[in-house]
Amino acid sequence: MNAPFNISLDAMGGDYAPDIVVKGVESARRRYPHARFLLFGDAGIIQPALDENESLAACCEVRHTDEAVTGDAKPSQVIRSGRNTSMWKAIESVKAGESRGVVSAGNTGALMAMSRLIMRMLPGIDRPAICSMFPSKVGETVMLDLGANAQCDSRNLVEFAVMGECFARAMLGLERPSVGLLNIGSEDLKGTDILREAAQTLRSSHLDMEFAGFVEGDDITKGTVDVIVTDGFTGNVALKTAEGTAKLFATFLRNAIRSSLMAKFGMIFAKPVLSQVMSRADPRRYNGALFVGLNGVVVKSHGGTDSIGFANAIGVAVDMISRDLNGRIGEQLDHLASQLAPRRPEDVTTSKSFEAESEAK
Amino acid sequence: MNAPFNISLDAMGGDYAPDIVVKGVESARRRYPHARFLLFGDAGIIQPALDENESLAACCEVRHTDEAVTGDAKPSQVIRSGRNTSMWKAIESVKAGESRGVVSAGNTGALMAMSRLIMRMLPGIDRPAICSMFPSKVGETVMLDLGANAQCDSRNLVEFAVMGECFARAMLGLERPSVGLLNIGSEDLKGTDILREAAQTLRSSHLDMEFAGFVEGDDITKGTVDVIVTDGFTGNVALKTAEGTAKLFATFLRNAIRSSLMAKFGMIFAKPVLSQVMSRADPRRYNGALFVGLNGVVVKSHGGTDSIGFANAIGVAVDMISRDLNGRIGEQLDHLASQLAPRRPEDVTTSKSFEAESEAK
Repeated sequence: MNAPFNISLDAMGGDYAPDIVVKGVESARRRYPHARFLLFGDAGIIQPALDENESLAACCEVRHTDEAVTGDAKPSQVIRSGRNTSMWKAIESVKAGESRGVVSAGNTGALMAMSRLIMRMLPGIDRPAICSMFPSKVGETVMLDLGANAQCDSRNLVEFAVMGECFARAMLGLERPSVGLLNIGSEDLKGTDILREAAQTLRSSHLDMEFAGFVEGDDITKGTVDVIVTDGFTGNVALKTAEGTAKLFATFLRNAIRSSLMAKFGMIFAKPVLSQVMSRADPRRYNGALFVGLNGVVVKSHGGTDSIGFANAIGVAVDMISRDLNGRIGEQLDHLASQLAPRRPEDVTTSKSFEAESEAK
Repeated sequence: MNAPFNISLDAMGGDYAPDIVVKGVESARRRYPHARFLLFGDAGIIQPALDENESLAACCEVRHTDEAVTGDAKPSQVIRSGRNTSMWKAIESVKAGESRGVVSAGNTGALMAMSRLIMRMLPGIDRPAICSMFPSKVGETVMLDLGANAQCDSRNLVEFAVMGECFARAMLGLERPSVGLLNIGSEDLKGTDILREAAQTLRSSHLDMEFAGFVEGDDITKGTVDVIVTDGFTGNVALKTAEGTAKLFATFLRNAIRSSLMAKFGMIFAKPVLSQVMSRADPRRYNGALFVGLNGVVVKSHGGTDSIGFANAIGVAVDMISRDLNGRIGEQLDHLASQLAPRRPEDVTTSKSFEAESEAK
């Protein structure tokens, strides 16, 4: 697990780049002394920042690029004309074998489209998914897809289940994570045909997997299962609804405390535990979504994150690399392939249709 | 607004019926002195409870039924053999013109199937939706569908927009509520074809409606728009995710306070405001989901609610009746019908396919 490896960073991606990237590496390098970092971006800014700190500079290498992907760039546009951007070069370095994974806080659609074009999919996977963790009463719940695919067929969901289960093993260190399919009731007859088909396949395929059937929206935070599988539309709405609800609660709390002198006094004593609650649900803790299903490790950081959040995103990449996520996914897919009919050609997303779809993201 | 009217109550529905129903009426009758209540259920239990309180008994009438719908009954089963249940009789009394609306804390699928069979749909509406409110930073956000239709076409979504807008006028007293379509991004190209079609219709139909385009999951609690329209699958997941997140936050808070003596001391002073926060997000405040689109007012209370929650569900029914929700929906639909092609026969859900679908809920 401690063999040294390189990680490529898109140093120009995100609202506060390259500052948060350099500072993020400074935190991450202490936690992951076996990692080295290739920083892609404007060397004129990045190199001086590194040179201020000798030990930091020692584990970093800057690769100059003149261009960067903007936040509003369309995926179809960047895959045509983005070859000189920091994001492209960072992904390309993984493909070239110079590093084992890439982290970017830049444009999500562009990162997905470029990664897919340059790295290609893992054999046997039709579409990549966005995978991350939610806090739950008992720890963390892994969930995917959080927004890569607005519409999915049952085979996509089965593949997401395989990938999410492998992510939970690598990220949470679980020996046998349980997997549920998100539905609007736990009975077998609920939901759409696609969900019923996916459940049927997961039950009958003899995959080495603890499939727990259907779960509902409140099971995300209950921690009923370790991994929750859904299409990218539902997953994205659930993620943003949960974030919004947590913020609402925090706002109500803050406003209520401000409105009362007694409460302000009480808070002098209660503040440390309140900070603890806030930190338990701190979005930076959960920063770093994996684009799973690609032939390489790609981690997307929130665009607005700070250096602590960016360091956590690097941590996700480190875990995926050290624990050989894609190796395990490959083994599971071999099981699946031996039991299911091969995908019909008309079911496989062509790069043309993917491009159109990325555009629509 | 103060003309007296009757409301029918399924006195046997819910985990704590008929107790919460009788006590709920006791709270509601003070708030709504112009309402009278028809209680359907076991007269041997209900009548003695009413007789303990003369003013309560004076505004109630008990209609004895021998049977009640169980929580696990299937919709297809109850519409065949549930004609003697308290739920059926309560709905039937609305159809017969004896009362203006019905409230039940019983089996959701059964209530929907029976209401649809007995009351029929409003002319021009293909499917009913479940409509309720979420707390937001600026007040309340109305959302529908929360689970009646796992799959919707674009015309369904347009009809939900019309009905949700009328609900917001009646419930929140807004003159011109704004309406958004739930999506995974606010750009016009995001999401599914169904969503883009629905947005196009809402933009071009010259409905008397403030259509604000696409919104995302976190806009529910931000209060970006007054009404959020989505299919029943996404809406149900969002509702349960929000409930789960609020509970998680409350649990973290409780556990953190318990774990620290200093915090416990501080809480002596801060408790009143914390209770205020909890009450701001109290699910009982938001109890009472309207089944909108039916030819009559049907309100579903949470099955596990107490009498305060049940009284709030009665309040939803009172508001819908007093403010003539269905009259306003009818006017808006006339606008819509003059501008859109009539539904093709193959698009209209037959009662047979509805039955099959209810079964799957």
